[in-house]
Amino acid sequence: MAAEIAEQPEVLAGLVARRAEIAEVAQVIAHRPPRFALLAARGSSDHAALYAKYLIEVMLGLPAGLVSPSTVTLYGARPDLRDVLLVSVSQSGGSPDLLEFTETARKQGALTVAVTNTPDSPLHRAAELGVNIGAGTERAVAATKTYSATLLALYLLIDAVRGGDGSAAAELGPLAEQALQAPVQRAVDRYRFVNRIITTGRGYSYATALESALKLAETSYLAARAYSGADLLHGPVAAIDEDTAVLAVTGTGRGGAAMQDVLKAVAERGADVLALGSAADDVPAALRIPVPAVAEELAPVLEVLPVQQLALGLSVARGGDPDSPRGLLKVTRTR
Amino acid sequence: MAAEIAEQPEVLAGLVARRAEIAEVAQVIAHRPPRFALLAARGSSDHAALYAKYLIEVMLGLPAGLVSPSTVTLYGARPDLRDVLLVSVSQSGGSPDLLEFTETARKQGALTVAVTNTPDSPLHRAAELGVNIGAGTERAVAATKTYSATLLALYLLIDAVRGGDGSAAAELGPLAEQALQAPVQRAVDRYRFVNRIITTGRGYSYATALESALKLAETSYLAARAYSGADLLHGPVAAIDEDTAVLAVTGTGRGGAAMQDVLKAVAERGADVLALGSAADDVPAALRIPVPAVAEELAPVLEVLPVQQLALGLSVARGGDPDSPRGLLKVTRTR
Repeated sequence: MAAEIAEQPEVLAGLVARRAEIAEVAQVIAHRPPRFALLAARGSSDHAALYAKYLIEVMLGLPAGLVSPSTVTLYGARPDLRDVLLVSVSQSGGSPDLLEFTETARKQGALTVAVTNTPDSPLHRAAELGVNIGAGTERAVAATKTYSATLLALYLLIDAVRGGDGSAAAELGPLAEQALQAPVQRAVDRYRFVNRIITTGRGYSYATALESALKLAETSYLAARAYSGADLLHGPVAAIDEDTAVLAVTGTGRGGAAMQDVLKAVAERGADVLALGSAADDVPAALRIPVPAVAEELAPVLEVLPVQQLALGLSVARGGDPDSPRGLLKVTRTR
Repeated sequence: MAAEIAEQPEVLAGLVARRAEIAEVAQVIAHRPPRFALLAARGSSDHAALYAKYLIEVMLGLPAGLVSPSTVTLYGARPDLRDVLLVSVSQSGGSPDLLEFTETARKQGALTVAVTNTPDSPLHRAAELGVNIGAGTERAVAATKTYSATLLALYLLIDAVRGGDGSAAAELGPLAEQALQAPVQRAVDRYRFVNRIITTGRGYSYATALESALKLAETSYLAARAYSGADLLHGPVAAIDEDTAVLAVTGTGRGGAAMQDVLKAVAERGADVLALGSAADDVPAALRIPVPAVAEELAPVLEVLPVQQLALGLSVARGGDPDSPRGLLKVTRTR
């Protein structure tokens, strides 16, 4: 897991260098413009899909939704998917329910695109178009480099659909190198004996909050729970007290700005706040992990890097095996 | 909260009796058939919205998605929403971000429907069509009767759009009465000192899992976390051990059947399982709360009733005030 975390600057730079390849896929989409987008994914990829949903809604002005595969796989739904773009996201390309959903969607008229790390996978072949994130083999069970590479691939794809040249991503390799220098040891120490963690973010960075909770739960077995900043105020804030750690993703963009109310409500309840992001130094917090600034749409690619290091450090500190968390396989086969 | 829980058989029966009123709204939708559906909601209503997403996909064969209001309210997105049905769900009809999203969606061409308990609310007025769930004033902060009534209103609406007469719901009043007799005291005792609870369900009943986690978190301050059964197997199952309580929603339909793998994985990790639903007696579990059988699409309306009683009982047992959980107001104003 440590080695794969460290590879990310190179993986991201490599993907930026291959962006013309992704732009070709984008051109096909631009020539058959969809009116609605659906995203299908599980696990970490589901957080990347949520990130893409925000990109599609804001950058392309298209309504978008995350797929519940079971409507097709369990209940046999056969929705009318003409004018729909389906983006199926899976590093392994091996999840049977995503495969079945993608095959059905293609038959039902959707333009289907698979974004995977495994171009010879059934999912990649089932979709009409494919984007290879090219992160190289990932052996640790917890997704790290495939997650950040998937985010970037989705950004480059969607940016190219609207005619962008991906230039905002040009420096992501070196910026990722810098993000990996972030000081996480104090947070590792502070969370060694924590019982409950809530992670929260808004806008694009809600994906970071979700991925953070999953990473901490699967490698360190923590009871970590993610909420969008807005949803947190609708009920769950009541469960926060002095014994709750709150990892708040606070960037310099609009999503970060909208976190002010959330940080205030959380502080009133006495929570132990770890601020993470490009605006980490500007908010009240017990601990801070700053992340290099970048266009807000790309911030999640960098924010997740110190989170991965935190999850790795905690897993080791708590006596776990970050490479093979108990009870998990690399490819989970759900129907 | 206890009084409002007890009112539900009457509220549900009342709504069934008023189904012709809901069918009129459905007729307008059927005459302007949408190609896509979006659902906008926060908090408990968001779980009702997810339930409706499954209904729309399976019963109407339309792709559907849950809205991220911040794409419009924070990032200024102006998506093309012609041929889109937007269903905005809010018991109070007072959340500023839902109001802004609904107004924007209407301007952008969507057919807008508000489902609220407050027909004189700004949200209800902002939408072109309105469904009044008619649950009467809800004073406890935790939504109970407005949640079950919202589920039923959404079912009756969607069933009527496809030309149904709502007859599957005819007996919900008496069935709810029966569901409220479910034995929850042992679960209250068992969870008095629990530290972590995971709730899980699949298909329509995933909404029940989500609502259960929220109810337990907001009234009893428990670190409760919901996963769809499929997502649970993609990572979070690693965090489950002997000290984890798992509330598994297990009905007699296809969603319940698909929970078998999940129950097996959870049992292997030694979790303390509470099975809740119409198939509760048919699965391995430490505790069982059976719920009367009904058409699978309607099961969530009944499943939530004993969960509410469990949350209420736990809140009292843990010394809380179920009517006014700390740090919460009845109407949460997020932007």
